[in-house]
Formats: sequence, structure tokens, C-alpha cells
Amino acid sequence: MKKELDHTSVIPLYHQLKEILRENIESSQWRPGELIPSENQLQKEYKISRNTVKKALDDLVAEGLLHRIQGKGTFVAKPKLDQSLSSFYSFSKVMEAKGLEPKDIIISINTTEADPNISEHLNLPEGASVITLERLRCAREEPIILETSYIPQNIIPELDKEKIQKYSLYEYMQKEYGVIVTNAKEMFEPVLIREYESQYLQVKPGYPALLLDRIGYDTDRRPVEFCRSIVRGDRCRFYTELL
Amino acid sequence: MKKELDHTSVIPLYHQLKEILRENIESSQWRPGELIPSENQLQKEYKISRNTVKKALDDLVAEGLLHRIQGKGTFVAKPKLDQSLSSFYSFSKVMEAKGLEPKDIIISINTTEADPNISEHLNLPEGASVITLERLRCAREEPIILETSYIPQNIIPELDKEKIQKYSLYEYMQKEYGVIVTNAKEMFEPVLIREYESQYLQVKPGYPALLLDRIGYDTDRRPVEFCRSIVRGDRCRFYTELL
Repeated sequence: MKKELDHTSVIPLYHQLKEILRENIESSQWRPGELIPSENQLQKEYKISRNTVKKALDDLVAEGLLHRIQGKGTFVAKPKLDQSLSSFYSFSKVMEAKGLEPKDIIISINTTEADPNISEHLNLPEGASVITLERLRCAREEPIILETSYIPQNIIPELDKEKIQKYSLYEYMQKEYGVIVTNAKEMFEPVLIREYESQYLQVKPGYPALLLDRIGYDTDRRPVEFCRSIVRGDRCRFYTELL
Repeated sequence: MKKELDHTSVIPLYHQLKEILRENIESSQWRPGELIPSENQLQKEYKISRNTVKKALDDLVAEGLLHRIQGKGTFVAKPKLDQSLSSFYSFSKVMEAKGLEPKDIIISINTTEADPNISEHLNLPEGASVITLERLRCAREEPIILETSYIPQNIIPELDKEKIQKYSLYEYMQKEYGVIVTNAKEMFEPVLIREYESQYLQVKPGYPALLLDRIGYDTDRRPVEFCRSIVRGDRCRFYTELL
């Protein structure tokens, strides 16, 4: 369904167009590397002036969502955050290395009983106590990942909110309890963002996201964390090298 | 938006319910490992008999979309096709090893000019000739991946349709032209299935999919294939081990 511009609105036309084009990119209707319609085509399609089209495109180029190639046209840019899956990954460290000012917002810390899914991943009896830590992980003030960690309470009896905000979760586990996460298994698949998640991630429900499940193992090969993340599809891309 | 059962339809109620529940799973509204509503809840929600609910769930359990845990309830099963990203991946070989009877349908073979996206990935001048090979890759008659390969014509002058159907693409490149693909870079991100793709993949537009870009390099480190795949999100899950 093509959206129309509202010529009677107080919102400038270039801004309306920009938001429509942004939606095409964020909903993945337009995919990375693809050529978008020419200024001429957009001008005709939305019945607006060339200048209005140009202004909208200029803004999206400045934001890094589009890029222009001289004489070729305007293309959908690649997502900003390329993340390698080849090496063990720490969100904060990767973002820091890229100068993207990582910040975590702790949404909740609770103690619950492991349901069958969690108990299977953590190799725990069902109903065993697990600490759940729900965090919103941001880069440069922008929410990127909504993440819930499940930690067996018989291994990590307590999570101290202030300390987790200071160090990373893994650093906390190591410093406070001597538990060192040395390897992990990750599983991922594409999903659609849900209502609840969309409030935190600030993208619309139904937009594409990556569901990333991770099991972290310690030096004794015990599963010490099961983590389910919802990663914004419009901001992240994963890559791996195969040999 | 909750779908309703049509009590006046000739389609049996259990079958209607089954299709609604299937949609919840395939659209990822219900995600792997999650507990679904109890038989009791479904019975009330759709105003149908316990037997009707049971029959619908039994069918979906038999199809492998749901699984029951005694005394716990019914859970969304994990996708059938787990694929490792740790090692170099051949769709046909992985499917064969799993006994899933891989089959490729060649949709088209064409020669075109490289657009900026393709020329960047293949390290070619823009407008250089590339062969495009579009294939639908199936497992047990079910379409799983819609895949387009771009191959520089200066490296592989011709693709023989019959031979590619007999061997794999990489085997063909090796046998006919001595080009051996030894490593690859893969990038992936979640997207929504488009109209065109949905016709081949037999899932609705707007359902989640994984966009997988791969660049294959030969022994001389030349990029010899750029491949863009759309992988059905409801059928595949990727995993990787991190050390």
C-alpha cells in the first residue's frame, strides 16, 4: 500500500516524503544495496517539486540511510552496525571500539522458575530458580537490542543492579563469583517485532528483527547464561567468514 | 488482529483452527520454545469443543510445528533445518546429510551488466558482464531458499543448465573452469518476504525471512560469486559456536 502525501498538512512535504522513504528502508521493503527510484520518478509519483525530493533524499543521505553514486543513482545504504559472528562477541566492547557510545538500560531484574525452554537450554530441572535480567542496549542513545538473560541462581545467587551497570554482566559474574564464560552457542532466526518490544526498540510492530539465542558456558562447560535478544533489523547486520 | 472461525463453512473447524495456529507460528507471532495457550484457553477463545482443539494440535504436533511436554503444555517447536555457520556451507550437502532430499529448481539463467551493488561485491567495473542464476532450493519438495547468484563472465564464461542441475554450482565451476571456491564471507539480516518471493517460497508476503549475502573467493582470493538468498524464517535456523 503506497502512502500519500498530505498537501494540506502543516508538516512540510519534504518531511512527509522523508518519513515514507525511511519506512521503506526500515521495514526492509527497500533492501541494502538496492537502487531506489530516481528523483524524477519520485517527483512524478508523489506529485511534488524536484527540490522537495532532493531535500528529503539529502536528509536521508546525511543520516546514512541512503547513499548516492555519481551518475548511477541513490542506493539503500548498508546498516550501520556490522557485527562479526566469528569471534566471541560483547555488545559493549564492539560498540565502544566503533565509538558508538554503548549504554545499557536495565528494565528489570527478577527471580523466576525456569520454564521448559529455559531449563532445557540451561540444563536445569524445571522450576529451578533463575535470575532474569532484562536490558535495553543502546548505541549513541539509539535502542538496538532488547535482551533477556536467564542465569541459574545456584551458580550466580544474586545480581547487583549497580554493579552490572558498571561492568558487563560477564565481568560481574567473574569478579563476584569466579564464573568465567569461555564459549557460547548462538542460534538465530528472523522474526517480526512485537508490540511490547516495539515500545522499547522504537520501531513499529511487524518490522523485521533478528531473534538471537545464546547459551554461554563456563570453564567447566556448564551453561551459565541463556540469553534471548531481539535485534533491530534496520540497524544491524551480521557477518561471518567461512573457511 | 485475531482471526475468527467460520462456523458456517464447509471446512471443518479443526482445520480452520489448525491454519490459524499455523499462521501464528509461521509469522513468528509465536516463537520457538514458547508455551502456547492451553487447550482449555483455546477452547474458550474460539468457542469450540475440546476434541476440535485436540485434533488441530495433534496435527501440528505430527507436522513437527508444535511439541507437547507431559504436564507442562504445548510448545512451539524449533525450526526443522538447523544450519551451522561455523563451517563452509553447501545447501545440497547439508540437506542430503539430513536425509531431506534436496532439489533445485532453476528459475532463470541470464547475462546482465553488473549494477553498483554487484560490482562492488565482485570487485568488477560497473557494467561488466555477469551471469545471473536464479534458483529455488527445496528440501523434501518444500521450497526453502530463493537464491540469485552473480558470476563474473570473465571468469566463468557460460553456465550450462543441465550440468548445474547435475552437480552443484561450485562443482561445475571447478570441473569446467578449474575455479575452486575456497572461502567465503557471509552477511545476513532479517527482512520481510516480498510478493515476488512469496510466490516461490509459498509463504505470505510480510512474513519474516533471512537475507543472506555471500561472496565466494577462489584460491587466488578473487571474488567469483556473489549470491543473495532469501531464506524462509519459519523453516530455518542458523547456529554458530563462539570460542
